[in-house]
Amino acid sequence: MSETILEKAEGRVSYHDSVEEMVKRIREDGMSNVFDRWALQEKIRCKFCLEGLSCQLCSQGPCRISEKGGQVKGVCGIGPDAMAMRNLLLQNIMGAGTYSHHAYEAFRTLKATGEGKTPFKIKDENKLKWMCEKLGVSTNQEINKMAIELAELLEEQMKIDSEDKNLMVEVFAPKKRKEVWRKLGIYPAGVQHEEQNSVASCLTNVDGNYASLAIKALKLGLATIYNAQIGLEMTQDILFGTPMPHEVNVDLGIMDPDYVNIVFNGHQPWAGARTIEKARMAEVQEKAKAAGAKGLRVVGSIETGQELLQRFEVDDVFVGLMGNWLAIEPLLATGTVDVMAMEENCSPPAIDHYAEKYQATLVAISTIIDIPGLQHKIPYHPDKVDEMTDALIDLAIENFKKRKDNVKPMVPKIVQKAIAGFSTEAVLGALGNKLDPLVDVISAGKIKGVVALANCSTLRNGPQDWNTVNLTKELIKKNILVVSGGCGNHALEVAGLCSLEAANMAGEGLKEVCTMLKIPPVLSFGTCTDTGRISMLVTALADHLDVDVPQLPIAVTAPEWMEQKATIDGVFAVAYGAYTHLSPTPFVTGAPELVKLLTQDVEGLTGGKVALGDDPVEVANGIEAHINAKRKGLGLS
Amino acid sequence: MSETILEKAEGRVSYHDSVEEMVKRIREDGMSNVFDRWALQEKIRCKFCLEGLSCQLCSQGPCRISEKGGQVKGVCGIGPDAMAMRNLLLQNIMGAGTYSHHAYEAFRTLKATGEGKTPFKIKDENKLKWMCEKLGVSTNQEINKMAIELAELLEEQMKIDSEDKNLMVEVFAPKKRKEVWRKLGIYPAGVQHEEQNSVASCLTNVDGNYASLAIKALKLGLATIYNAQIGLEMTQDILFGTPMPHEVNVDLGIMDPDYVNIVFNGHQPWAGARTIEKARMAEVQEKAKAAGAKGLRVVGSIETGQELLQRFEVDDVFVGLMGNWLAIEPLLATGTVDVMAMEENCSPPAIDHYAEKYQATLVAISTIIDIPGLQHKIPYHPDKVDEMTDALIDLAIENFKKRKDNVKPMVPKIVQKAIAGFSTEAVLGALGNKLDPLVDVISAGKIKGVVALANCSTLRNGPQDWNTVNLTKELIKKNILVVSGGCGNHALEVAGLCSLEAANMAGEGLKEVCTMLKIPPVLSFGTCTDTGRISMLVTALADHLDVDVPQLPIAVTAPEWMEQKATIDGVFAVAYGAYTHLSPTPFVTGAPELVKLLTQDVEGLTGGKVALGDDPVEVANGIEAHINAKRKGLGLS
Repeated sequence: MSETILEKAEGRVSYHDSVEEMVKRIREDGMSNVFDRWALQEKIRCKFCLEGLSCQLCSQGPCRISEKGGQVKGVCGIGPDAMAMRNLLLQNIMGAGTYSHHAYEAFRTLKATGEGKTPFKIKDENKLKWMCEKLGVSTNQEINKMAIELAELLEEQMKIDSEDKNLMVEVFAPKKRKEVWRKLGIYPAGVQHEEQNSVASCLTNVDGNYASLAIKALKLGLATIYNAQIGLEMTQDILFGTPMPHEVNVDLGIMDPDYVNIVFNGHQPWAGARTIEKARMAEVQEKAKAAGAKGLRVVGSIETGQELLQRFEVDDVFVGLMGNWLAIEPLLATGTVDVMAMEENCSPPAIDHYAEKYQATLVAISTIIDIPGLQHKIPYHPDKVDEMTDALIDLAIENFKKRKDNVKPMVPKIVQKAIAGFSTEAVLGALGNKLDPLVDVISAGKIKGVVALANCSTLRNGPQDWNTVNLTKELIKKNILVVSGGCGNHALEVAGLCSLEAANMAGEGLKEVCTMLKIPPVLSFGTCTDTGRISMLVTALADHLDVDVPQLPIAVTAPEWMEQKATIDGVFAVAYGAYTHLSPTPFVTGAPELVKLLTQDVEGLTGGKVALGDDPVEVANGIEAHINAKRKGLGLS
Repeated sequence: MSETILEKAEGRVSYHDSVEEMVKRIREDGMSNVFDRWALQEKIRCKFCLEGLSCQLCSQGPCRISEKGGQVKGVCGIGPDAMAMRNLLLQNIMGAGTYSHHAYEAFRTLKATGEGKTPFKIKDENKLKWMCEKLGVSTNQEINKMAIELAELLEEQMKIDSEDKNLMVEVFAPKKRKEVWRKLGIYPAGVQHEEQNSVASCLTNVDGNYASLAIKALKLGLATIYNAQIGLEMTQDILFGTPMPHEVNVDLGIMDPDYVNIVFNGHQPWAGARTIEKARMAEVQEKAKAAGAKGLRVVGSIETGQELLQRFEVDDVFVGLMGNWLAIEPLLATGTVDVMAMEENCSPPAIDHYAEKYQATLVAISTIIDIPGLQHKIPYHPDKVDEMTDALIDLAIENFKKRKDNVKPMVPKIVQKAIAGFSTEAVLGALGNKLDPLVDVISAGKIKGVVALANCSTLRNGPQDWNTVNLTKELIKKNILVVSGGCGNHALEVAGLCSLEAANMAGEGLKEVCTMLKIPPVLSFGTCTDTGRISMLVTALADHLDVDVPQLPIAVTAPEWMEQKATIDGVFAVAYGAYTHLSPTPFVTGAPELVKLLTQDVEGLTGGKVALGDDPVEVANGIEAHINAKRKGLGLS
C-alpha cells in the first residue's frame, strides 16, 4: 500500500467513523470482536496455509509442501499447484452451491407466487414477459401461469446435463464468447451438474492436475452466473420490481433505539420485503406503540439490506442499510436491535454474545444458518411467509419491552445519503434506451472505461473497506466509471461515493458525465449476486459494438474479497474475459505454475486474467494501463 | 496398538509381502513413493490441522485455535467445535458428491441401455422387476421400457426436495428407523438437495453451530446411502448380474508380463465390463498375439476391480484383482501394465512418473479424473462404450510393443484365492431363502454378532492394511462374522481372510457355521458403495425380528478410512444406529463438545455412535462388549 494511504490507516480498524466509534464501546464492554480476533490471529498464521501448501482432506494428511525438508509432494503424490488449486476449487464450489441455494429459494418462491400461495404478486410484469420471451416461454397465457412455467424452466436449467441445451447461456452470454468457451471446453452444463462434477474431482487421488482443476473452476463460474445468478436476480425483479435509482440512507446512524427494530441480515429478500409491507400497515405500528415504542422499523443489513434498498423506497418504516458484514457486531452493540433475522450470508458465529449483552433476539430464517445456542429457527418456506413475518414482528415487540429497560443505547450520529438501485434497464433508461451515448462518452475519453467492483470486506489488507474505498477513489479520479455490487458496494455507499456529490472526487471527464446525467461516479448495482446483472450490461455493450469482451476497456476488481461466493464471481470474471484484480492474494503463492496460469497464461485462453496487488494506487495504475491498452486496440485515444 | 502386533509391523510398509517386494524395486529405482512420502510428511505434521483447529476457508484466515495464545476463536468468531465439524462436513459432502456422480453415471447407463444405445443388456431381469415392484414402476411393460422408467425415477430421487416423498428411504430403510429420523429432523431429501443445503451451510459466517452441522452430516449420510448408493448398486446388478459367491484370484501375482494387460482402476464397471466381453472374442486375442503377446488380459484394480470381481468369473482373460490403492505404485512398478484406465477413485497424482519409468499408458475415462501431463482422455459416455473400449485395446497393444523391449518386468509370485460376490440375495440363498437359520446361529451364540467393515487403506495407523487385517482376525476369533466392503475388503481378500481356509482362524462357533455353509468367516460384499448393500442385509434382519437397528448385535468398523467417501459412509452408519469404529481418529480431537457429541451424546439420539482407537485388540474388545450388551438386551446369552 502507498505510504500515504497506509499511514492514514494507522490505528484504525475501519474506514468508517461509525464503526470506529462502536468498537470503542465494544472494547470497553470487554466483548470479543472481529477486529481484535484478527490481531490475535495475526500472531499465529500458518505460512503453509497462506501459500496454499497445506492439505487436510484425507487421513494420510495433514500434509505440507516444503522444498527444504524434501516434502515436495503430499503423501498421495499431489504437488503444490494442484494442492492449491484444489483448495481454491473447493471454495468455488461452496460459492456456487450458495448461489444455487439462493436460486432454488427464488425459483420456488416465483412458482408459489404464481400458484397464489405467497403474499407476493408479480410486480414487474414487463420483466416477466421479457424473460419468457427470451427463454421461449409462451407469453400468450395468464401472467401467473407464465410465472410458474418460467420458474420451472429456471429450476430445470440449474440441473441440466452437458448434453442438454444451456438456454441461459445461449440467451444471456455475449455472442462472441460462446464459441470461445466451446473451444476451451468450458461451455457449462447446469450449475448443479458442474458442482457435482467439480466436487467429485476434488476427492483425494482424483484430479491431481492443477490445469484440469482450473478448467473446472472456469466452467463452474460460468454455470453459476448464467444458470443461477441471472435467473435469480431477474426473478427478484419480477417479484419486487426492477431496480431504479433512488436516494437512500445508509450507515449506523439510521438506527433509532426508540423504535422496535427488525434487522434483515443475509442475502435473500423474501421475509424483509414482506415485513416492510406489513410494517407499513397501521395495525402493526399500533402494536409496537402499545409496547411503548415510537413504532416498528425494518433495517437492512448487508446483502439482504442491499436487495431491499435496490427495490424499496426508504421512509420512516424501511430506514435503509446499516453497512456490510464487519459492521454487524458494531450494529448489535448500538443496543437498538430487537430482532436480527438471519439467512444465507454472514451471520458471524460469535454474535450470540452480542445478542445477550445488548438484548437482541436472533432468529435463523433459513435452513442453512445456525449459531451456537440459537433459540429461534423459522426456516423460510414460500407458503408460510406471512406466519414467518408475524412471528418476527411479535418476537421483536417482545424483545423491545425487555431491551428498552435493560440496555443503554449508543448510536453514532452518522447518516449518509446514497443513490442505490442501478440496473441495466436503469442505465439504458438514463441514456434514452440506447447504448450509443455511453459509447460516445467512452469514445470521447470522458469515461476512459468501466470497472466492475464485486466484493466483500476483509481485514486482511487493511482496516474494513480501506482498500475498497481508496481504490475506487483512485479509479474515478482517472475517469473510470465504477459499477459496484456486494459488501464492497455497501462500503462505497457508506463512504459517500455513491452520492451525487462524489462527482467532485472524479476526474474532469467523468465529473462532466455524472453532472449531465445526474448520476454518481459509482453506480450501485446491488449485491454480489448482481455480478450477473453487471455482466448483462457489459454483454449488451460488447454485442452492441460487435466485439468480444476482452476487447472492451473494462476490468473487474474485488479489492476486499473475503468468502467463497466472491471466489466464484472472480473465476467467472476470468472466464468471461475480464482483467480481474483480486486482493487479498488467494492462498496460491506457493504454487508457481498455478500463479503463472492465473496471472498470465489464461489470458491466451479466455482473454481474462487475474491481477494481484494490495496497494490501491498501484492497482488503479494497473487497471488504467489495461483499459488504455484496450482503448488503443479499439482505435480510441 | 498392542505391543505384539506393533512389533510385528516393525520395518514394514504393508501387510502384504507382494507390496513389500515391489517397494524394494521402487526404492532401488529411486522412485518417489507413497510410503516414503508418508515418512517425510511425518516430520512436518501440523498439530492444529491434526486436531481440527485450523481453517483456511476465507481470506481472513488462515486461522488457528490456540487456548494458550488466547486465540479461542477464528477471526469470524467460529469456535473449535464448529471449525472441526465444518471441515468434516466438507469431507462428507465430497464423499456424497462422488457417490452421486457414480449414481448419475449408473442411471444414465441404465437408461441408455433400455434405449438400446449401449452394448449392455439387462442381465438380471428379476432384479429389475424386483426394483420396479418395490418402487411402484409398472412391471407390465417391455423389459427395456421398465429399465428406462426405473432409471428416470432413480435419477429423479436424487434431486427431490424435502417436501417430495422420499421413495428410496420409504422402501429401503428399516421400518422402525424412519420415525426416529423424522423426530430428529434427519429424514433426508434427495442427495443433491442435501449436498447443496450442506455446502451452503459451510460458508464462512453461515452455520457456526457444531451440533447443527453434525445434524446436516447425518441427514446427508442417509440421503447418500438411500438416494445414491442403493440405487446405483441395484442398477449395476441389473446390468451385470447380482453378485453370487465364487472363487477368484487376487494379489500382484496375477500379472503376467507376456500378455497385453489392461488395468481398470477406479470404481465404475462400465468400461471394464465391456472390455472383458470384448477380450473374450477371438479377434481381440489374435490382435494381441499379432503384436507378440500371449494374448490380452483385463486386470481389476481397487474398487473397479472389486465391482468386476463380484459379477464376473475369473479366467484367462479377466485375471482377478490386484489389491487396493496403496498397491497401485507397486503394480505399475511390476512393468506389466499396458493401459491403466482410470475413473472415479484413487488414481494417485504422481503415478505419471511410474507410467514413464515402467512404460504404461495412463488413460482417464471419466471427466473427474486427471493427473499431471496426462495424454489420453476418453471420458465415459454410455452411447460410446464400444468406441472407448476399442481405443483402450488399441492403446494397450501399442504400449505392449514398446514395453516388452524396454522394461524388465518383476512380478511377486503370490496369487491368493478368495471367495468374492456376496450379496443379500446370496446370503439368503445360502440359508434357503429365509433369515431364520442366521437368527438361529446368532441366538445360539455360534455367531456372536456381525461386523460390517467398510474402509479404505491408509498408512496413518501402521503399514498398509495392518490394522484392517489384524482387527478382522481378532473379530473372527471372537466368533464375530465380518461382512466387508471397500479397499479394506480387498485387503482381507489379499490377506487370505476371504478364503474357506480362513475358517481355521475363526472361533469354534463361527468355524462350525463356515464349515457347514461352506463360506469364509469374512464375506466379501464388494466395494465401499456396497455399504448400502450391507445395510440391506441388516435392515432385513431388523425388520424380520421386528426390532430397531440399535438393538441388534452388530457394529461397523472403518479401521483404515482414508478418503472422503469413507467419511460419509461412517456418518451414515451413526445415523443408521450403529456402533461405528473409526481409525485413524478424524481431525476432531481439539473439539471437545464435538467429540462428546459423536462418541457419547449421539447415542441418545440415533442409537449409533463413534468409537475411536487404533489398537486392533482393544478395538475388537470394545466391539465384542457392545455386541454382548446388545445380545443381553435381546435376551441372548
